[in-house]
Amino acid sequence: MTTLINGDMLIGQTAVHGTATPFHAINPASGATIEPSFGTGTLADVQQACALAEQAFDVYRDTSLEERAAFLEQIAQNIVDIGPALIERAMQESGLPQARLEGERGRTVGQLRLFAKVIRDGNWLATALDSALPDRAPPRPDLRLRKIALGPVVVFGASNFPLAFSVAGGDTASALAAGCPVIVKAHGAHPGTSELVAKAVQAAVASCKLPEGVFSMLHGDGRTIGQALVTHPAIKAVGFTGSRQGGLALVRSAAQRDEPIPVYAEMSSINPMFLLPDAMAQGAAKIGSGFIDSLTMGAGQFCTNPGLVIAIDGTDLDTFCDAAVTALQGKAASTMLTPGIHAAFNDGVSRLAGASGVALLARGQTGASASAGQAGLFVTDAATFLENPALEEEIFGASSLVIKCRDIAQFKEIAEYLDGQLTATLFLTENDKTAAQALLPTLERKVGRILVNNYPTGVEVSHAMVHGGPFPATSDSRGTSVGASAIERFLRPVSYQDLPAWLLPTALQDNNPLNLWRLRDGALMQA
Amino acid sequence: MTTLINGDMLIGQTAVHGTATPFHAINPASGATIEPSFGTGTLADVQQACALAEQAFDVYRDTSLEERAAFLEQIAQNIVDIGPALIERAMQESGLPQARLEGERGRTVGQLRLFAKVIRDGNWLATALDSALPDRAPPRPDLRLRKIALGPVVVFGASNFPLAFSVAGGDTASALAAGCPVIVKAHGAHPGTSELVAKAVQAAVASCKLPEGVFSMLHGDGRTIGQALVTHPAIKAVGFTGSRQGGLALVRSAAQRDEPIPVYAEMSSINPMFLLPDAMAQGAAKIGSGFIDSLTMGAGQFCTNPGLVIAIDGTDLDTFCDAAVTALQGKAASTMLTPGIHAAFNDGVSRLAGASGVALLARGQTGASASAGQAGLFVTDAATFLENPALEEEIFGASSLVIKCRDIAQFKEIAEYLDGQLTATLFLTENDKTAAQALLPTLERKVGRILVNNYPTGVEVSHAMVHGGPFPATSDSRGTSVGASAIERFLRPVSYQDLPAWLLPTALQDNNPLNLWRLRDGALMQA
Repeated sequence: MTTLINGDMLIGQTAVHGTATPFHAINPASGATIEPSFGTGTLADVQQACALAEQAFDVYRDTSLEERAAFLEQIAQNIVDIGPALIERAMQESGLPQARLEGERGRTVGQLRLFAKVIRDGNWLATALDSALPDRAPPRPDLRLRKIALGPVVVFGASNFPLAFSVAGGDTASALAAGCPVIVKAHGAHPGTSELVAKAVQAAVASCKLPEGVFSMLHGDGRTIGQALVTHPAIKAVGFTGSRQGGLALVRSAAQRDEPIPVYAEMSSINPMFLLPDAMAQGAAKIGSGFIDSLTMGAGQFCTNPGLVIAIDGTDLDTFCDAAVTALQGKAASTMLTPGIHAAFNDGVSRLAGASGVALLARGQTGASASAGQAGLFVTDAATFLENPALEEEIFGASSLVIKCRDIAQFKEIAEYLDGQLTATLFLTENDKTAAQALLPTLERKVGRILVNNYPTGVEVSHAMVHGGPFPATSDSRGTSVGASAIERFLRPVSYQDLPAWLLPTALQDNNPLNLWRLRDGALMQA
Repeated sequence: MTTLINGDMLIGQTAVHGTATPFHAINPASGATIEPSFGTGTLADVQQACALAEQAFDVYRDTSLEERAAFLEQIAQNIVDIGPALIERAMQESGLPQARLEGERGRTVGQLRLFAKVIRDGNWLATALDSALPDRAPPRPDLRLRKIALGPVVVFGASNFPLAFSVAGGDTASALAAGCPVIVKAHGAHPGTSELVAKAVQAAVASCKLPEGVFSMLHGDGRTIGQALVTHPAIKAVGFTGSRQGGLALVRSAAQRDEPIPVYAEMSSINPMFLLPDAMAQGAAKIGSGFIDSLTMGAGQFCTNPGLVIAIDGTDLDTFCDAAVTALQGKAASTMLTPGIHAAFNDGVSRLAGASGVALLARGQTGASASAGQAGLFVTDAATFLENPALEEEIFGASSLVIKCRDIAQFKEIAEYLDGQLTATLFLTENDKTAAQALLPTLERKVGRILVNNYPTGVEVSHAMVHGGPFPATSDSRGTSVGASAIERFLRPVSYQDLPAWLLPTALQDNNPLNLWRLRDGALMQA
């Protein structure tokens, strides 16, 4: 694979140097610009990418399961084949360390391969066959259902995972798996990384002999290019990971189209951790130091970063806080993703530090990097938290707030008060059973993933993962943006009534040529 | 079951006579008012119903599969037990004939019983279990996924199926099956029918010892009571069947909430029928007379009424039209559902008759009823149709437009031009293979159900049915409002990470106590 970065967009198989506002990537550690210059797209570029995607759709969605799976595997291989140049560029653009980015590349590639397996399994087709009952009055027709792809999808790359939630990340992989052409609006913080990965996808489109419109990547800002993409009639769904403000703008635009379309925006979450009394009695210090590891991982720039800790006031909480403070004071500052994110983090921490009833527990170390994020840990009490909605706002980065509760009853009160979240965590032992069982129904209503005795920053890519949750964690709690079920966001059902065999899709043929699990007259079977 | 109609709303277990604007049902055949007087609800009534629903939610969604299935079966039995009084009242309020309403009652009861089976099967839980891999680096946690109910749902009763798409219709049945409390905004055209059915549901809530907030029914208009329900924070989804204008108003309101929620609005569809050449050569006359039976069924007031016929100009189409005209001229006028629907139908037919390039083929008979709908059949050519978007607007009632095409290539052009539809129909023989295969991908993109050699007005309630489709047929093409999959609209996934057995939901326990089909490490099994 090429390691050359030309500053281009990719529109189908064509490299296009954008003619609108030029820009450079910025190294957040030094503040220096990184060559080359990138050009941003025009509305004509949007039109061209959308027209190609629309043209490609019927051909692409009609590829066999095997062809589409092989395409995703080829993308994965092409990303691997870029080699160290990809990691080096991503390090420069994101300030993230090498080991983290190598791990993220593994995750990205593994995710593409998981979706190749998901495609081949074909469970996402949700096939159902109801036999004709010609002698019933009235006769029942032969009915067969499968899911098909929604149409071309726009994906907005995220800043915080320049590989796993970006050009060939989970949204792109799941949309391509479903049979949707994808147009990526690259994140401005890592345009070079985006170009390298986009070329890997583009090369896979070519070598798999797919229509070129299956994939394009554009540069440009959200307000012009992003909005133009989301409001283009050819686009049928949107995937987004980023700020609440950015996500909501897309949600509103999509809802105001002549034809409203779904937007899957993963936006904001503070990921509460509830520390139950016996778990604290057994190991408050260990929970506290582990918490700081989770809080400061990746400079705190995880969607599932633990931004809220709920515990009962007392000596166990003091022990937890002492351990956390000690651990935090030893943590080196990490370079944040962009100077803008760093500035917003500092603003957020300042606001929190100045809020009435909130006290500073500790800060992490300062650092020499231009965008060094100095972690922060704060404390307040339940009454203060419940009275000030600003304390629930996400501060993107390594900042967390401990809430001292009077008693366990306040845990439920806080859980009910909270907005929707990606995750909630319970630290517990079996002696905390009553409290945990009382909290669980509330947490189920509020979050997409409930964890016990671990930290939320790990997000496994597997079948049972949910990286989603009620608003404002996401704009659509019916989906997940990580894990095999992410494909379901880009599908819709079609029913076929009395079609002759020569017109029926392969997945619905009598003899089950794809060896799918199918619902036959209400019973699941592979026969 | 009681056969008394008091003009009440039901808020939980309490009968409340609405204190806002009183109204009566109108017999559309005579224009006469029907006793008793109904009272419409206030914002306080909305608040009370929503508060009860919110309180009921955690308890109701935690009922066992068997309890919930038994509840739906009890509703079905209670509806049967109302006896002839239900049919008599529905006939008075809707103008629909006895046999049709008895059939619709059977469908409604069958639908509730199908969802009882769906609940027991538990496939809707979409359970997935990924084993822990403690020795992997990093270790993989134990992850388990199930779907849970979204929360309280508002259902808007439809005018055209006073039983099957109303108080205890498909939206209500599927939402209750999912574990969502339901508040029905009854349709003003059949308040007495609604009260009888609502009392049957209310009695089932009581006898099954469920929290009273599981079900309420309110009277009031869409602009005040309907909007207040859709914008209430406790409400998490909306089901609607009705006009495009009404549906879009709800979609917009739901999108503008602080927390946007899904709206499943089934709105408008003209259900094109494509008559392929060899099918016409083999049986144009038979297709034509059968078409008129479908067109005039239920006074044409079906969502899937065939409002558009696409065929190639020539002698076979002449034969089709002759047969259709003869059949139509023999069709008695049927009473339409309301005086307002009748007036709107007459307006629509007048507009179509006056449109440039459109000619009248035939009208059905006139009738003595105050709301007698006189069916209409019109003809135009493809060029005219493609130039005038107004010709694609649904006329609710028995009106259809034949489009004469120059050649088969125009079929595809028209299919591409059409908005989203609930259905598309192909009349074909094997000699039409090439044309049918060329059309199919376009139809898949445009509609929810594709039929061959039959008419779209029959909508089976089964597993493989899709009563849905791209906008504006519905506001959300990802769902269906008829058939077993309708339950999926009211669910969202939750993932459980490393939960101890004593905290895990029953559906996710190791030993599979519910005997569910579960995805274990990516493989479906019932073990």
